[in-house]
Amino acid sequence: MPADIDAGLASAREVVAGVIAGRPDFGPEPIDAAMRYALDGGKGMRAFLVIEGARLCGTGAGASGPAAAAIECIHAYSLVHDDLPCMDDDDLRRGRPTLHRKWDEATAVLAGDALQSLAFELVLDAGCDDATKVTLTRSLAEAARGMVGGQALDIAAEEAETPLTLDEIEALQALKTGKLIRWSATAGALIAGADAAPFDAYGQALGLAFQIADDVLDATGDAAEVGKAVGKDAAAGKATFVSLLGVDGARDRAQALADAAVAALDGYGPEADTLRDLARFTVTRRS
Amino acid sequence: MPADIDAGLASAREVVAGVIAGRPDFGPEPIDAAMRYALDGGKGMRAFLVIEGARLCGTGAGASGPAAAAIECIHAYSLVHDDLPCMDDDDLRRGRPTLHRKWDEATAVLAGDALQSLAFELVLDAGCDDATKVTLTRSLAEAARGMVGGQALDIAAEEAETPLTLDEIEALQALKTGKLIRWSATAGALIAGADAAPFDAYGQALGLAFQIADDVLDATGDAAEVGKAVGKDAAAGKATFVSLLGVDGARDRAQALADAAVAALDGYGPEADTLRDLARFTVTRRS
Repeated sequence: MPADIDAGLASAREVVAGVIAGRPDFGPEPIDAAMRYALDGGKGMRAFLVIEGARLCGTGAGASGPAAAAIECIHAYSLVHDDLPCMDDDDLRRGRPTLHRKWDEATAVLAGDALQSLAFELVLDAGCDDATKVTLTRSLAEAARGMVGGQALDIAAEEAETPLTLDEIEALQALKTGKLIRWSATAGALIAGADAAPFDAYGQALGLAFQIADDVLDATGDAAEVGKAVGKDAAAGKATFVSLLGVDGARDRAQALADAAVAALDGYGPEADTLRDLARFTVTRRS
Repeated sequence: MPADIDAGLASAREVVAGVIAGRPDFGPEPIDAAMRYALDGGKGMRAFLVIEGARLCGTGAGASGPAAAAIECIHAYSLVHDDLPCMDDDDLRRGRPTLHRKWDEATAVLAGDALQSLAFELVLDAGCDDATKVTLTRSLAEAARGMVGGQALDIAAEEAETPLTLDEIEALQALKTGKLIRWSATAGALIAGADAAPFDAYGQALGLAFQIADDVLDATGDAAEVGKAVGKDAAAGKATFVSLLGVDGARDRAQALADAAVAALDGYGPEADTLRDLARFTVTRRS
């Protein structure tokens, strides 16, 4: 990973950890401990996008940090619920037992629910005026609901007889992973009172590039290097960007999207290089 | 049920149905259908409290309706998740199959999650200024998270060796059912820009009175009349207001709380009679 991205992610994780540590108990045990467990160990990419977007628009992490923590809460809750036995039934997440394996299913449902609530408390602590808080909160809620729709489409696709088309996969991913990434990319500009349009274009391209690159890694990566099982999609007969475009076609598409993300930030100078590097790294990463 | 409460609840349900019907699709199927199913068939007491509180303070259902719909979304999501096999494992709710029985567990988890998100979209549509929207949304999120904590305490109590004390049960219920009822009671006054303190006192007393009356019904009611299984708490050896205070003691406590709820509205004239009737009816109801 390029050093600037590595440093940016580490700094974003630190900001989020500070926001979370500064809050009183999230609930009676085991809810408080389970929520903090779920928030721990992520890469912090969404938080980084919020904080870096705000920084580029001249606003510091004191103002954007709570919104960065909010999106990490939504992301964490979605992983906890997706890992449940009735969903993906995963035992491991970020190299540790999933929440329902460490505690139990009821605690996983409840801690996920409380993390979603907490996200809406945190986003309202962003350092901006009330009108912007309303905009941020409404779009966060819409993004969170869209993500659920994407997850439902994904489950339906696994059970369907006919594999999805390219348009259908793009629509699914725009909801499932795209909505939160777009929100993250734009939130900082909104908090800073700047034009969010370039960041929206950046986030939209980045989100899809990230997902296509994930499919390529699943099809071509080495499990030890990627850090999780690979070849799952092909084994499941699932339509992916790779099954529809081929490995080279998917790589080309991801690269074109990364280029579009970079181009979206043309109005900014070298101060936007870390976001540009992130878009490039997204499609060249090996894990 | 007294006619004024009956009419008020019916009218509140109609307002909520109108708000919900006026929204576009909540998500891809089965999420949209499941969300609307979960919102259907409730009494609408929380929505009624919001709308009636606003009305008393001079503001109509056009302004308060979205907030009323929001709290019904939170209530509906909590029931859907509480009914899950890993929680209460209920097959029936409001005389119909629970959501995970009608669809499946994954749909129930996801529809519940999306209902929580939707609540935060709706509350921001309340007819009030942005500062009030921020206050309403923050308190709704805190109430929703508090409710989860109450549910976790309830699960822990069922597994504990020692039954809860009276203070512990009150603290549990103040979270599990009290938080949403208090929010409902105060939201209308906040939207109207009126003093919410009397409504907060009313809601706090009403919520606890409601729960104690529920325990009395469970201990003394007739299943056919109550409309659900009774005697469950005693059979489970669970500490309740009845096991701790006796039937008469619990009835007296509930009556005192209903009186306190009525007294909290002393600053209002006959226009507050429906809320007073609701407090009185809460402790004399037979179902």
